[in-house]
Amino acid sequence: MNVERRLAELGLVLPKAMIVPAEVKIPFAWVRLRGNRAFVSGHGALDPDGSPTGPFGKVPAEVSLEEAQRSARLAALAVLSSLKAALDDLDRVTAWLMINGHVNAEPGWPQTTAVINPVSELVLDLYGRQAGAHARTAIGVAALPLNLPVVISAEIEITTT
Amino acid sequence: MNVERRLAELGLVLPKAMIVPAEVKIPFAWVRLRGNRAFVSGHGALDPDGSPTGPFGKVPAEVSLEEAQRSARLAALAVLSSLKAALDDLDRVTAWLMINGHVNAEPGWPQTTAVINPVSELVLDLYGRQAGAHARTAIGVAALPLNLPVVISAEIEITTT
Amino acid sequence: MNVERRLAELGLVLPKAMIVPAEVKIPFAWVRLRGNRAFVSGHGALDPDGSPTGPFGKVPAEVSLEEAQRSARLAALAVLSSLKAALDDLDRVTAWLMINGHVNAEPGWPQTTAVINPVSELVLDLYGRQAGAHARTAIGVAALPLNLPVVISAEIEITTT
Repeated sequence: MNVERRLAELGLVLPKAMIVPAEVKIPFAWVRLRGNRAFVSGHGALDPDGSPTGPFGKVPAEVSLEEAQRSARLAALAVLSSLKAALDDLDRVTAWLMINGHVNAEPGWPQTTAVINPVSELVLDLYGRQAGAHARTAIGVAALPLNLPVVISAEIEITTT
Repeated sequence: MNVERRLAELGLVLPKAMIVPAEVKIPFAWVRLRGNRAFVSGHGALDPDGSPTGPFGKVPAEVSLEEAQRSARLAALAVLSSLKAALDDLDRVTAWLMINGHVNAEPGWPQTTAVINPVSELVLDLYGRQAGAHARTAIGVAALPLNLPVVISAEIEITTT
Repeated sequence: MNVERRLAELGLVLPKAMIVPAEVKIPFAWVRLRGNRAFVSGHGALDPDGSPTGPFGKVPAEVSLEEAQRSARLAALAVLSSLKAALDDLDRVTAWLMINGHVNAEPGWPQTTAVINPVSELVLDLYGRQAGAHARTAIGVAALPLNLPVVISAEIEITTT
């Protein structure tokens, strides 16, 4: 397994660490490591320089399904960027366990599964079926930080080196 | 503990594996096993043949409290069906740890606790107070996959045998 | 580390165990202990006597940002009260791992992060940067039990003594 090489093959670049807007405080860890466990905070889409990136708003009224899927994929890359910062080496991830997908959905919109699928597909593509397999939720929520359309959190197993 | 026998005593039958609608992709595991841990993805109500079953929609405008409670109980049976498929034997569950209940609620509706109670009660009935005890959340969300009224996810401890 | 002493220095008093309204059933554990793991159910703000306390309703239409922050801090004290009942000694907490903040938010309201920050800040103040560090989500939901403005759940590592 060499996740960095696979990212390069796919033409994907991890964003820099999030540039937190001046009015926002972040008194928590993007990744909490403890033994062989990694807890990943809610992450949204970032531009390559680390700026939170739109489109922002409700799915599908303000952000289309396709745009929300793109945002979900960028949020997954932001998760990977934080994991790389915390672990140094993305190959230290031995098992994805649970991925929680939160979609800033209009009431009753039934397609939250489709929004989060690009996250699952990217994880499986990068880590394969053994390490990449994961349980998942994909819920529609009333509101998300910065009015992001998608936020992803996760629990992961890692080597303790 | 013999969970299958207790299910039979209660007249309960586990549904077959979910029949996924043609337009939906499921690139995740219904249950992710790792060591003595089992992570259970979000499950909704199924008919005995595995078809997602209604009523669908918002609680309580489109789905009454009583209907939502029934949907929650069916979602719990769907969770047990997935656990049986993953573990072969439901008696391999040594401890329910956390159950997360998601209710497709109208804004501000205050009775999400009551909707999820049948899930907790069924788990306690089947597994008893030692293994069945669990922490829980019961939140109202803006939207759920397939417009289901209730989705249940969980974390569980299992024997590794 | 002596969390009780630090609480006293801050002038904070833990509420008594929640007085559950007559019409509400609680068939789950406020804290589920298993080995070195503690799963904490969703908790809302309590008065010192254990009564659920308002203001209740949607943030920010019915409950202001500042009121929601106060409610979040009271919910954190309720979590600590349940942990003390389960563990006897709050110093048995060796690591906060994940905190999930749920805000009863109006659709699209972008400041859920600010609502949950007092929870993170209190945990860090009481437990310090080693044990208190945690991952976090802060999502806006459609509805919460009792129409509370904020509900907090968590996963924590403890000594098994």
